Amino acid sequence: MKINHIALVVNDMAEGHTFWHDVMGLPAGKAYREEAQGVDVAFYPAGEKDSLIPAVELISPLDDESGVAKYLAKKGPGMHHLCFEVDDIVATLAELKDKGIQLIDEEPRLNKKGVKVAFVHPKSTGGVLVEFYETKVG
Amino acid sequence: MKINHIALVVNDMAEGHTFWHDVMGLPAGKAYREEAQGVDVAFYPAGEKDSLIPAVELISPLDDESGVAKYLAKKGPGMHHLCFEVDDIVATLAELKDKGIQLIDEEPRLNKKGVKVAFVHPKSTGGVLVEFYETKVG
Repeated sequence: MKINHIALVVNDMAEGHTFWHDVMGLPAGKAYREEAQGVDVAFYPAGEKDSLIPAVELISPLDDESGVAKYLAKKGPGMHHLCFEVDDIVATLAELKDKGIQLIDEEPRLNKKGVKVAFVHPKSTGGVLVEFYETKVG
Repeated sequence: MKINHIALVVNDMAEGHTFWHDVMGLPAGKAYREEAQGVDVAFYPAGEKDSLIPAVELISPLDDESGVAKYLAKKGPGMHHLCFEVDDIVATLAELKDKGIQLIDEEPRLNKKGVKVAFVHPKSTGGVLVEFYETKVG
């Protein structure tokens, strides 16, 4: 169970890039549009030289309708979620459910990179939106 | 520049321990009281086997007066700050200041573990409270 990325919501990807890349010096990684979630996404790896994880992930809404857009409107820019890698996401979700943890995704879904992902509800985690990535696929 | 820890504010350290250790399975690391900041602190390493970083850090206020207590009262439990390791914190702070970044700590201070630390103001980072640790000492 290791951290894959820490996601930050930004008002503007270019502003985010200026801070995290130009000022903080993190290398720019993958960037793409995740239409299904209504967001642009960009990764800034901040891990060991030999490993591109964990990364800072910037996410920015494409419109006013997405969950991320509503989060940004309500809470402002800042930290959004924390993502952990697991070997078997179905087993992880089953185990968490068994322990009484409230899941947002009862079944994993595929993100644009083809990685199986699922979110756990902040009600069960002390206010932290927790995501899982299945690393077998990603 | 790599991530040392992600700090989460919790209402209650025991509840936080239950989720992050018992449910999520992160090993329990150092835990101590940081009187100067008015908080209890506990680390849950989530890194590679050979490295105890990055970690999830839980922080919980000791009273109603500390900055963390006020944050918790205003925003509720959840993600609080993001800490990066640097080799030379004085040089990092000078460089950030030169780039127009607003610092909370113009000079590094020592935390209870004897690590030189400093915070950058969320106004300059897109809403994220960013901390630096100087790894030469820590």
